[in-house]
Amino acid sequence: MQIVRVQDAEGRILYGRRQGEQVLRIEGSLWDEEGFIVTDEPVEVAELLAPITPPNIFAIGKNYRGHAQEMGSPPPADPIIFLKATTSLLDPGQPIVLPACSQEIDYEGELAVVIGRETRDVSVEHAMKCVFGYTCANDVTARDWQKRQGQWVRAKSFDTFCPMGPWIETELANPQAVTLTTRVNGQIVQQTSTADMLFPIAHLISFLSQDLTLLAGTVILTGTPEGVGMSRTPPLWLKAGDQVSVSVDGIGELTSPVSD
Amino acid sequence: MQIVRVQDAEGRILYGRRQGEQVLRIEGSLWDEEGFIVTDEPVEVAELLAPITPPNIFAIGKNYRGHAQEMGSPPPADPIIFLKATTSLLDPGQPIVLPACSQEIDYEGELAVVIGRETRDVSVEHAMKCVFGYTCANDVTARDWQKRQGQWVRAKSFDTFCPMGPWIETELANPQAVTLTTRVNGQIVQQTSTADMLFPIAHLISFLSQDLTLLAGTVILTGTPEGVGMSRTPPLWLKAGDQVSVSVDGIGELTSPVSD
Repeated sequence: MQIVRVQDAEGRILYGRRQGEQVLRIEGSLWDEEGFIVTDEPVEVAELLAPITPPNIFAIGKNYRGHAQEMGSPPPADPIIFLKATTSLLDPGQPIVLPACSQEIDYEGELAVVIGRETRDVSVEHAMKCVFGYTCANDVTARDWQKRQGQWVRAKSFDTFCPMGPWIETELANPQAVTLTTRVNGQIVQQTSTADMLFPIAHLISFLSQDLTLLAGTVILTGTPEGVGMSRTPPLWLKAGDQVSVSVDGIGELTSPVSD
Repeated sequence: MQIVRVQDAEGRILYGRRQGEQVLRIEGSLWDEEGFIVTDEPVEVAELLAPITPPNIFAIGKNYRGHAQEMGSPPPADPIIFLKATTSLLDPGQPIVLPACSQEIDYEGELAVVIGRETRDVSVEHAMKCVFGYTCANDVTARDWQKRQGQWVRAKSFDTFCPMGPWIETELANPQAVTLTTRVNGQIVQQTSTADMLFPIAHLISFLSQDLTLLAGTVILTGTPEGVGMSRTPPLWLKAGDQVSVSVDGIGELTSPVSD
């Protein structure tokens, strides 16, 4: 099922189920244990929004061997965890705005996991039961600030630095065997199977939930594969007028123009 | 004015103004430009809560020379920014629960700033106008995970790792000249004037707000002074049965028992 969050023609923010070109209004909370109701009431979509407003946006560093290599790092012993500010969230189709304080803005296409229920200390075996669905995300990064700070949070938290969407797919058959593709102006710059993750999704959720509560609606960006702009010669920094898209087979495509 | 967030005898969560031993109910939003109303209606306080539920909890690394030194680092060129998960928030008086996955839990007493209005790209000159008030916080840290991850987010985001309170003081005369004291079991372990910050509050807010929106209710932990547990011989790790308190002159005292 494809779940969208939209603004309708009257300015209301609603959840809906996408069916073909139609969106049917959802009643009740996505997290209700009894389940939510998909009505037969079509929604007049004015704007597609990021499909979730997470209480925390966790992200994982160097979770693909090829990306760890291109960043000059050995594969990490544990998942490397960081956070992006919740205010960095960006709706599908809206522009990534280049920060005035950086000259090196890079894309990172990622598969994002949406947690569906409060989760803590979950085992690897049971971790996938906590997943509500999957979406696409771009972990936009200011490389100059990433190097300068050591800590990655600032480099990854500027406004518009977390495009997410276009919707949540709740029925991805095997999230560990889908192709993730990032394009800049139509050219493929990243293309890898999620089978290549160093720590698979169940491991990430279990590790992250140790002594830490993942609330329903929490999003985990599962890491980017090789092919980021900084690894190229010359580096491929995003510039105004570019268009960057992240797509995952079985989910859809998240496109963001770039502006200054 | 001291602003508290409380649960009342009927389980409702309310804001109030603390006057002596009484709490008067507040009507309206703390962020309303028109101002909120302090009623003359006393609240029957059942429990004192963390005074704010922030959309983001930003924190600053090594913002006191003595602490940078004891961590073996030169003073940073810019404020080092990181985030704590919003789920790490802890009410005053509630226990810091030692995570099963760490053996080296440390305290970090800090002055916390509460942002009162949406703020972006603010100059150092105008930054203090965005402050709603001040409270105490403990940036509890698992040192083993801090070393092991390199990135600090996980080490600082376990549940209960962000005690905050006991209230927001909106009229701290000079937040850059108050004494910050941390005690473990009554013994002073940190005591420094906020005058010793490397980057003063106005600078922190201005820097953080570059290309990044600070929503009303955002909290910034302004860094810890020297005297953390890991700098001692032998290290002073928190253990079950301890009591740790952070106090700031002119605000109050935030006390947390420690449990496993």
